[in-house]
Amino acid sequence: MHSPVPEYLADVLAACTDESPAAIALTTVDDAHHGAGDLAHRFAIQSMSKPFAYAVALERRGWEAVHEKVDVEPSGEAFNEISLDPRTGRPHNPMINAGAIAISGLIGSFEEFARFASRLAGRELQMDTATFESERSDAHRNLALAHLLAAYEIIDDPVEAVDHYLRQCALLVDVRDLATMAAVLANGGVHPDSGERLMAERTAIQVLSVMTTCGMYDDAGDWLASVGIPAKSGVSGGIIGVLPGQVGMAVFSPGLNDHGTSVVGIEMMRRISQDMGMHLMNPGRPSRSALADVRVGTDETVYVLSGDLMFASAESLFGHLLDAPPQTATVAIDVSQVGQMSDVGRRMLLEAKARLEEDGLTVRVVERDGADRTPPDGAR
Amino acid sequence: MHSPVPEYLADVLAACTDESPAAIALTTVDDAHHGAGDLAHRFAIQSMSKPFAYAVALERRGWEAVHEKVDVEPSGEAFNEISLDPRTGRPHNPMINAGAIAISGLIGSFEEFARFASRLAGRELQMDTATFESERSDAHRNLALAHLLAAYEIIDDPVEAVDHYLRQCALLVDVRDLATMAAVLANGGVHPDSGERLMAERTAIQVLSVMTTCGMYDDAGDWLASVGIPAKSGVSGGIIGVLPGQVGMAVFSPGLNDHGTSVVGIEMMRRISQDMGMHLMNPGRPSRSALADVRVGTDETVYVLSGDLMFASAESLFGHLLDAPPQTATVAIDVSQVGQMSDVGRRMLLEAKARLEEDGLTVRVVERDGADRTPPDGAR
Amino acid sequence: MHSPVPEYLADVLAACTDESPAAIALTTVDDAHHGAGDLAHRFAIQSMSKPFAYAVALERRGWEAVHEKVDVEPSGEAFNEISLDPRTGRPHNPMINAGAIAISGLIGSFEEFARFASRLAGRELQMDTATFESERSDAHRNLALAHLLAAYEIIDDPVEAVDHYLRQCALLVDVRDLATMAAVLANGGVHPDSGERLMAERTAIQVLSVMTTCGMYDDAGDWLASVGIPAKSGVSGGIIGVLPGQVGMAVFSPGLNDHGTSVVGIEMMRRISQDMGMHLMNPGRPSRSALADVRVGTDETVYVLSGDLMFASAESLFGHLLDAPPQTATVAIDVSQVGQMSDVGRRMLLEAKARLEEDGLTVRVVERDGADRTPPDGAR
Amino acid sequence: MHSPVPEYLADVLAACTDESPAAIALTTVDDAHHGAGDLAHRFAIQSMSKPFAYAVALERRGWEAVHEKVDVEPSGEAFNEISLDPRTGRPHNPMINAGAIAISGLIGSFEEFARFASRLAGRELQMDTATFESERSDAHRNLALAHLLAAYEIIDDPVEAVDHYLRQCALLVDVRDLATMAAVLANGGVHPDSGERLMAERTAIQVLSVMTTCGMYDDAGDWLASVGIPAKSGVSGGIIGVLPGQVGMAVFSPGLNDHGTSVVGIEMMRRISQDMGMHLMNPGRPSRSALADVRVGTDETVYVLSGDLMFASAESLFGHLLDAPPQTATVAIDVSQVGQMSDVGRRMLLEAKARLEEDGLTVRVVERDGADRTPPDGAR
Repeated sequence: MHSPVPEYLADVLAACTDESPAAIALTTVDDAHHGAGDLAHRFAIQSMSKPFAYAVALERRGWEAVHEKVDVEPSGEAFNEISLDPRTGRPHNPMINAGAIAISGLIGSFEEFARFASRLAGRELQMDTATFESERSDAHRNLALAHLLAAYEIIDDPVEAVDHYLRQCALLVDVRDLATMAAVLANGGVHPDSGERLMAERTAIQVLSVMTTCGMYDDAGDWLASVGIPAKSGVSGGIIGVLPGQVGMAVFSPGLNDHGTSVVGIEMMRRISQDMGMHLMNPGRPSRSALADVRVGTDETVYVLSGDLMFASAESLFGHLLDAPPQTATVAIDVSQVGQMSDVGRRMLLEAKARLEEDGLTVRVVERDGADRTPPDGAR
Repeated sequence: MHSPVPEYLADVLAACTDESPAAIALTTVDDAHHGAGDLAHRFAIQSMSKPFAYAVALERRGWEAVHEKVDVEPSGEAFNEISLDPRTGRPHNPMINAGAIAISGLIGSFEEFARFASRLAGRELQMDTATFESERSDAHRNLALAHLLAAYEIIDDPVEAVDHYLRQCALLVDVRDLATMAAVLANGGVHPDSGERLMAERTAIQVLSVMTTCGMYDDAGDWLASVGIPAKSGVSGGIIGVLPGQVGMAVFSPGLNDHGTSVVGIEMMRRISQDMGMHLMNPGRPSRSALADVRVGTDETVYVLSGDLMFASAESLFGHLLDAPPQTATVAIDVSQVGQMSDVGRRMLLEAKARLEEDGLTVRVVERDGADRTPPDGAR
Repeated sequence: MHSPVPEYLADVLAACTDESPAAIALTTVDDAHHGAGDLAHRFAIQSMSKPFAYAVALERRGWEAVHEKVDVEPSGEAFNEISLDPRTGRPHNPMINAGAIAISGLIGSFEEFARFASRLAGRELQMDTATFESERSDAHRNLALAHLLAAYEIIDDPVEAVDHYLRQCALLVDVRDLATMAAVLANGGVHPDSGERLMAERTAIQVLSVMTTCGMYDDAGDWLASVGIPAKSGVSGGIIGVLPGQVGMAVFSPGLNDHGTSVVGIEMMRRISQDMGMHLMNPGRPSRSALADVRVGTDETVYVLSGDLMFASAESLFGHLLDAPPQTATVAIDVSQVGQMSDVGRRMLLEAKARLEEDGLTVRVVERDGADRTPPDGAR
Repeated sequence: MHSPVPEYLADVLAACTDESPAAIALTTVDDAHHGAGDLAHRFAIQSMSKPFAYAVALERRGWEAVHEKVDVEPSGEAFNEISLDPRTGRPHNPMINAGAIAISGLIGSFEEFARFASRLAGRELQMDTATFESERSDAHRNLALAHLLAAYEIIDDPVEAVDHYLRQCALLVDVRDLATMAAVLANGGVHPDSGERLMAERTAIQVLSVMTTCGMYDDAGDWLASVGIPAKSGVSGGIIGVLPGQVGMAVFSPGLNDHGTSVVGIEMMRRISQDMGMHLMNPGRPSRSALADVRVGTDETVYVLSGDLMFASAESLFGHLLDAPPQTATVAIDVSQVGQMSDVGRRMLLEAKARLEEDGLTVRVVERDGADRTPPDGAR
C-alpha cells in the first residue's frame, strides 16, 4: 500500500501545466513528504528567503531591535516600490525589498543566514554564483533602497547590505527544500524531521502573520480571501505556502505575471487550497492528528479517528498504516467521532479502504449513524 | 459545578479597566455563552456592522456584482480616508467607510440589513434614532465619499446610501449580541444556537479573510501578528473578534485611541489571545471537540479527551459535565491521547477536577505517561 | 489706414483650425480691442471664472480670511482631483475645483460674483440656465469636494456652495468679454476702457501669480516654459491669457484634450506667444534705458528720460551722471515723456537731484504738466 | 556724486540681520554692479548651480535629449524627495536633486560645467575640496536617487553622476559672482559685461521659466505671489533671483529654515521686491506707450518712439495714427531712441509705413545709425 497524495499532486500539476520544469512538494508537520514533477530542479530562492531572514533577525537580534528598523504593515505596493515611512525611514514590512535589505543589514552576515536556511532545509544550501553576479551587476533599484535606508540610519553599509541580500536570494533550492522549510513554520518552529526547535514558536507565528498580510504584496487581500494560505513568491518562479499546524508546501513554474509571481504556481496553490479545504479561515481546521486511538484485538484492528477529517488528518492514518501495517485480517476504521469530513478527507479514507482491501484485508468503516457503533470485540 | 470561563473573563476585565461600562462576551461554535461586566449595556454597532453588511451583499447581490464595486485589498489607510482606485473608483475594501457605503448602495435597503443582523444576533435589533440623527447632521465626510462613489457610478443615490449606512451603524447591540453574531462567522455561517445556516460557508470565509487583512485599517499587520484574531472595531467602543472554528467574541469600553478603536478593548483582546493561545497562526489549533468518548462504567465514568487541549476543547468538557453530570462516584479524565495542552487548557482541566471534587467525587487524570494508561474497568 | 492686428489674428485662427465656432480676441491695457473669428459666439465661462472669483474673495473677504481657507501652491494634479491638505483640509489653490468651491463658499453670494464679472466685462453677463441645470444634475464630484470641505470646516453649506459655484461657471461670455476681463488683470486692476479701478493692484498681481503656477493644473511648468503667458482654461473650450502690463487675450475652440483644455486654443496661444515675443520671461520687455537723450547747451544740460522710470532705468541715469558729470552750472532732468514712475524711480530721481545740488549745481525737473515743458534754450 | 543703490542695499541688510557673514549683490543687464555686506565671503554654490547646469545641458546636449530624461513640472515636494514619474522614471524637474543628478549625468563632465559657470561669473571658480569630500561621505540620499535613475536608464553610472553633482555643488562663489551669473539669465543669455552670448535667449527663457515654477520647491506658489522674482536657493545660505530684462541678484546669510532656504535671505529678497516693485507680474514693467512725442511741423509730422518697440508699444502708434491722421504730406517715424525692437514690433512698424504710403504720404524712418538723426526742420 502507498499514499495517494503523490498521485493527487501529479494530477494538480498536469491540470495546471504541461510545461517543464514544474513541481509541487508538501511536507506535513508529522514529517510526511510528498511531491510531483521536477523535484530535483533547483532554482534561486529569491524573495522566498525573506520570511526566513526575518526569522533569523528576530531570533538573533531581538524583536525590539528588528521592529525599530522595520514595520509589519501591508504597504499595498509592489515588491520593489521605493517607499519608506516618510518620518522614520522604516520600510513598511520585511517582505518588500526595502524591508528585506534592512533585515540583511541587521543580520549582518550572509553566512549566518545560509547556515540557518540550511538547517531549515535539512541540507547544506549553496549559492548560485552566476545568479548572484548577474543580479549584482544590475542592482540599481536595490542599491537605491539601501542608500535611502542608510540616509535614515536604518542600515550602515548599503553596498554590503545589498551584497548580502543578493547572496541570500541566490541560494539554490528545490521544491522539497522549500516545503520542508515552510513546514518548520507550520510546525511552530520545530523541524518536522529532527524534532529540533529552530526558532521560538512566537517567531514562527510572527513570520506567518507577516506573510499573511504582506507576503503577496499588493495582492494580499485577494490572496488571503481566495486561497487562504499564507504564502511568499519569488521571481525564480517558486511560491511557498504554510497552513499552520498542518503543512508546508512549495510550487514551481517559471512563467511570471506582472507582479513577478509564477502564473502556474498561483493556479496550483489555488487548486490545492480548494481541493483540500486548506484555507486559514476554514472553520473546520483539524486537530494535529485525527488518529485518536488504535485498538488491536484478536482478529480486528480498530483505527479510531477523531476531530475533523481533512487532508492532514487523513494523511496521518495513511502514515500509520504504512509504518505499522495491521496484523489482523479485519480492519475497522471508526469515523463515528469525526466532526467534519472534507471531500479530500473522504476521498483519502475510501482510498485507504480500497488499498487495504487490495492487500487482502476485510475493511469496515464505522460511521456516525450508530449501526456499526458498537465497538468491535477485539477492542475490549 | 459551573464553568470557570466567566471568572476568567471577569479577571481579564478587572485587569484591564476599573471603568464602567465595560464588558466581554464569548460564544463558542458549540453555542456556549460566557460573559463578564456590563453585559446589558447597549451601544451603536457602528463599523462592526461592516463585516455583516458585506456578508449580506455577497449573499443577496452575488460575488461578482459586489467585487465589481468594491475591492478586497488593505489600503494601509485610516477608516475615513478619501481614497478610491483612481481609474475605477472602487473602494479598496468593504471595511473602510467608502467600501461600506458602496455595500449599503448595493444592498439597497436598510431593512434587509436589519433583518439579517437580527437573525445573526438571535433577537430583534433596534436602531437608536438619536445616534442616527446626530450622525446624519454631521455626515459631510461620508457624503463626500458617497458623492465620489456616485461620480464613478459605483452607487446611484449618494444621499440614500449614506442614510442607509448611518441607520445600519446606529443599530443597538450589546456584547452578547456581537459575540453571537461573530460566532456565526466562526461557525462557517451556521448559527451556533439554532443550527440554521445564515450564509454560505464560502461567504463566512470571505468575510473573515477581509476582516483579517482590512479590519483594523492601518494597523492590520501589527494586529494580526500580535493578537492574531480577525477583528473589527467600532467608534462606539466595541470590538468583535472571530477565531474560525472556535469562538466569536466581543469586548466593549468607550475610551478610543487615535484610530477610533477602544483602548481597553484592544488590551482585553490581546490578553485573551495570549492567555488562551487564540492566534490564527497557532500551529496547535484544536479540533472542534476534544471530548472524544465518554465511557460509562459501573463505578467510574471515563471522559476521553483527544486532539489539542485548548480553550474551546476544555470548554466542551465543562459543557458536557454541566449538561450530564456523572452518575458514578469516581471519574477519570483521560488526556493520554491529547496532543498539545495549552496553559489555559491545563488550567481548565485542573479546575474541572477541583470542582468535581468539591461536588464529592473522586477524580483521577489519566496522563500520557502510561501509569494510569490502563483503561478503567468500567469502560470495557 | 487701419490696424494690421485683426488680420494677424485671423491668420492665426486659419492656421490652427478651419472648424467653427472658433475665435480670438485681444484687449490691450490701452484699451485697444482686436479679434477674429466667431466673436459673437457665447459659451459658459466655466473654470475661467476662477481667477476672477479669487479676486472677488481677496477684495471682499480680505487676504487673511481667504488664505486661511485656500493655499496658493501648485498641486501637480488634475483639476478635479480629490485632494486637500491632509491636516487642515485646505485646497492646494483656488484654480482647482476644491479651491474654487471654497472661494464660492467665502464669497457667499453668486450675485456678488456676477456683478463683479459684469463690471470686468463691461456688460451685464447672464447665466445659462440650461448649462447650470445640466451640471447641477451631475455634480457628484463637486459635491464630494464640497462635503469634504465642510467636514474640515472650510465651508458651511456644501450644497449651497456648489450651487453658487455652478452658477458662476454657467455665466455666458464671448472671447471679447474674456479678453477685456483679462486686460483688467494685465492693467493692474484698472479697467482699460473706463479707467476705473476694479481691484487693488496687489490683488491683480496675486491673481496673476497664482494663475502662473496653478492655472494650467498639472501642465503648469511646461506651459510657462513654452508659452509663457499666465492662463486659465475652461471645459467650454476657452482659454484666457494675460501678459502683465500689456494685454489680456482669449481664445475659443470646443475640442478638448485629456486635461479638459481646448486643443486648438492651446495652439493659438502658443503661436501668439511665439510670433509676438509675448513671454513672461522675455528679457526685452522693459525699456532698456530710460535716458533717451542728453542735450548739452551753453549753460544747461538736459537729460531726457523716457519709458517707465523704475529701478533699472533710474539706475542708468545715475550711471551716466557718474561716467560723464555735467559741465554746465544748470541741469534739467526732463521726465515729461516718462510713462509710469515707480516709487523707487521717483526716490532715485530726487536723490539724483539732491546729489547734483550738493555738488553745487542748479537742478530743475521738467514734469509732464507743461509748465516747464518748453525745451530749454540750450537744447535747440 | 555717487549711486544711492549701495546705501539702499546696506539698509536692507541692516534691517534684516545684524549677523555676519551676510551680503547682497545686484547686477543690472546694463552691467552696473552694486552690493553690501560681506561681499568677499565665499561659500559653496550648492543648489544654486542647478539652473546653470540645466542651461549647460540644454545648450550642449539639446532640448530633446534633456527633456527625454527630465520633466519641467513642479512637484510640490521637498528638494530631496525620492519621487520620479512611476512609469518613465523621469524626475519632475531639474531643480530637485533627482533632476539635477540626471542633468549631471547628461552633461557627463564636471569640468564642462565648471568652465561654463566660470564664464558666467567672469572669473575662474574653484571647487571647495573639504565641502565635496564631506558631502561625498554622506551622500546616501543622492546615491539612492542616482541608483534609482540608473534603474530607469535615465543615467548610466550613478556613482559618477553623484560625484559630478557634488563637485558642481561645491564650487565656491560670492554674492557678486552669483548676481552676475543671474544677470546673464536676466539679459537673455548675454553677459552684461562682455556682451558675449553665453546661451541662446530661448535657453535663458526656459531656465527662468523652470526656476519660476520649480525653483522654490514646495513653496513655489507663495514665493511667486508674494516675492515675484524667479529664484533658487542653496543650503549654503545663498539665494539667487532674476528679474528678466532688469537685474540679477544674490543674497547670503547662513541660517536656514526647514526647507533649507536662508531665513534672512528670504526676508532680503522680499524687501527688495516690495521696495523696488520688482515683481514679475508688475503691470508697470514695460513702457506703457512708445510714442514719446509727436512734433507737428509745416510739412512733416515726426512721431518719436522710445523704450522697446514690442507689440503693445507699436500698437499705440497705430492707435494714434488712426485717431489723429497726420495732416502733413511727409511723415517721419523716429525710432532712433528705441532700445530693443522685437520682430513683431518691426513688422508693425513697416506695416504702418506701408499703410501711410498707401494713403499717399511720404514716409521716412529715422534709424539709430545717425544718418537721419538730425531732427527734421519741421520739428524745431
